[in-house]
Amino acid sequence: MKTIRFIIVVLLAQFVFHKTTAQESDQLVRMAKLVIDSTHLEAYKAFLKEEIETSLRVEPGVLTLYAVSEKERPNHITILEIYKDMNAYRYHVQTPHFLKYKNGTLHMVKSLDLIETEPLMPEVKLIQRD
Amino acid sequence: MKTIRFIIVVLLAQFVFHKTTAQESDQLVRMAKLVIDSTHLEAYKAFLKEEIETSLRVEPGVLTLYAVSEKERPNHITILEIYKDMNAYRYHVQTPHFLKYKNGTLHMVKSLDLIETEPLMPEVKLIQRD
Repeated sequence: MKTIRFIIVVLLAQFVFHKTTAQESDQLVRMAKLVIDSTHLEAYKAFLKEEIETSLRVEPGVLTLYAVSEKERPNHITILEIYKDMNAYRYHVQTPHFLKYKNGTLHMVKSLDLIETEPLMPEVKLIQRD
Repeated sequence: MKTIRFIIVVLLAQFVFHKTTAQESDQLVRMAKLVIDSTHLEAYKAFLKEEIETSLRVEPGVLTLYAVSEKERPNHITILEIYKDMNAYRYHVQTPHFLKYKNGTLHMVKSLDLIETEPLMPEVKLIQRD
């Protein structure tokens, strides 16, 4: 256990001091805005949750996937997506877990709007503090 | 410098092993959507950048501030904001750096829409992988 902690701490130390200049220039930062058929909202969320969990676990090129639903319009979903580069995104959209989500939810999605964005501070890694 | 690195590593180690159950229930997760007067866009971005950098540096209750601009509509800004709880938010909006941003950009902001949200997976910390 101590060894594992040590390895994680070392990795985190590297993650803190590692320069990401190259990565920034290639990153894809996008907001996916979806409107879901309310009658399928819980089923949709289950598909999305599984897809995000699997992507973050098995795809190093998926840097961030973070989904929120609006409190006043719970069937309005926004997903903040950060991919390492275009190749990471091309890989992502043909993975079995993405296709399972995509095909499994097609009939639940009333609209999908993909908004390509530029981060205000690409040099600052997105992080949620403890 | 070594001391600073050590402190950061220790903090990161705690951040990894600390359970955040209590925090999740109180968190405020919000999207601020702004439309900026294009003639003031660069000045607005400078104000926002300074405000975000200062908030993340001096306010432990500000867990995430991440701003993007749309590629097709660069004056459309979205800020993902995560506060530890309502008190952290109340504290944030009366800090000198927030008030400097707010008052300094009032004439640049054509519209501001604050969208309260629920994260799909509150138990998963938002993080951008290296």
